[in-house]
Amino acid sequence: MTARHSESRFRVRYAETDQMGVVYYANYMVWMEIGRTDLCRASGFSYHDLEQAEGVSIAVAEAECRYHSPARYDDEILVRTSLERVRRRTMTFSYQIENGATGKRLARGRTTHVAVGRDGKPKSLPERYWRLLEAFGQEA
Amino acid sequence: MTARHSESRFRVRYAETDQMGVVYYANYMVWMEIGRTDLCRASGFSYHDLEQAEGVSIAVAEAECRYHSPARYDDEILVRTSLERVRRRTMTFSYQIENGATGKRLARGRTTHVAVGRDGKPKSLPERYWRLLEAFGQEA
Amino acid sequence: MTARHSESRFRVRYAETDQMGVVYYANYMVWMEIGRTDLCRASGFSYHDLEQAEGVSIAVAEAECRYHSPARYDDEILVRTSLERVRRRTMTFSYQIENGATGKRLARGRTTHVAVGRDGKPKSLPERYWRLLEAFGQEA
Amino acid sequence: MTARHSESRFRVRYAETDQMGVVYYANYMVWMEIGRTDLCRASGFSYHDLEQAEGVSIAVAEAECRYHSPARYDDEILVRTSLERVRRRTMTFSYQIENGATGKRLARGRTTHVAVGRDGKPKSLPERYWRLLEAFGQEA
Repeated sequence: MTARHSESRFRVRYAETDQMGVVYYANYMVWMEIGRTDLCRASGFSYHDLEQAEGVSIAVAEAECRYHSPARYDDEILVRTSLERVRRRTMTFSYQIENGATGKRLARGRTTHVAVGRDGKPKSLPERYWRLLEAFGQEA
Repeated sequence: MTARHSESRFRVRYAETDQMGVVYYANYMVWMEIGRTDLCRASGFSYHDLEQAEGVSIAVAEAECRYHSPARYDDEILVRTSLERVRRRTMTFSYQIENGATGKRLARGRTTHVAVGRDGKPKSLPERYWRLLEAFGQEA
Repeated sequence: MTARHSESRFRVRYAETDQMGVVYYANYMVWMEIGRTDLCRASGFSYHDLEQAEGVSIAVAEAECRYHSPARYDDEILVRTSLERVRRRTMTFSYQIENGATGKRLARGRTTHVAVGRDGKPKSLPERYWRLLEAFGQEA
Repeated sequence: MTARHSESRFRVRYAETDQMGVVYYANYMVWMEIGRTDLCRASGFSYHDLEQAEGVSIAVAEAECRYHSPARYDDEILVRTSLERVRRRTMTFSYQIENGATGKRLARGRTTHVAVGRDGKPKSLPERYWRLLEAFGQEA
């Protein structure tokens, strides 16, 4: 992985497993969101502040995930999050999810987003945030 | 069960199971909330409207649950929800959760609530809503 | 929608919303799984029985979703699930998720699956189940 | 808090919030389970191993929580978990959940458990695990 990325580490929760004995597939989407939160922090701002102070949310327009190998309860998970593309109103993140102890690939994902205001309508990302994300992506 | 109650029926989702092969315990709290939503509807109002039109939310102050028998994927669940007590600012609901097909008791729960405004501070329930809930409880 | 499909109807749970005031994006994956369960039932078998009696699970290999319009608490949701393709070891489902009251399109999704045994390795779907799914798809 | 306890730290996930803008109440039960996993680890064993190697699960019989102050997205959470009582077949944990940055109390909880075998029937905790938990509790 050559592009610059942020890293998120945590353990699988019991609540995230299902009766097949592995992590339920929808939870990978939750993990991707943890990755996005940490990428924003690594870029120099808090996503929480963007929402609270600026009234701008980054809504999900598309999400996809390929599942390679199952994750299990108490496994250490490592999510590597990259910013594939950022524009004033849209952005695309990609994710490599692996076992943090063994390095085994678990899943790969991608999400596309639209910046929206409190009314849910598209709205440009304030320049400060946009430049920080852009700078993060360029330092690859 | 002699007190007046509302009934909610649904099937266990795969996502709600865990690797023990049964429903994860926190999900019963989600089911209790479905019960509260349906009790409001049975009382004559929509909890959604209470929040949106009046800016009053019914926050949870205490929750408890006793688990009698496990629920499994695709089981039919029946939640019977009663209003134990209602005041202008506080109320208590109780729940009997059973298998909807066999009648087997799965769990019993109770939640206590405080009405709060958009600022999170205690606020009296608007009279219309309070009277509807009170009437529901009295018709037992 | 010309292909034969099953229908699943339910209301949005409070637990499914997030602080943006709409349904959190990962929950659409949970709804798709409700759709798959109901399509199996409409085909003539219970997915629960397939897992319990035959020891075969239908693991998710890929999942994708496009989000068109947000769903909100207490909205009626309608999931239309179709079987795009079924082979002995793989199958693809597609989903149209809409507001059940207004018909407004909320999301479209697709999931690809691999049948696996209790050891997590690929395993052919028992013939009875495979034929039922195939028949369901052909009666479009 | 004088009793010996384990500590678990993590940040609130976006998925854990609801449309009231705070963490949905059922998620505190998930956090308590993280606390139990970490207390087992602090005692000298992995709960995962107990389930996998010994076929013993620690099922929840009762759960309760008092909510003092809401948690919000991206807050640092600290869960202090204590073992109130441990017997061969039953045990009780208690939890203090606070904001890890400010120390503000968020919630207090308690869960009671029964050790069960793979068949779901009560079964004594293997001696090694029971002694480790007992020792953890006594070193307060």
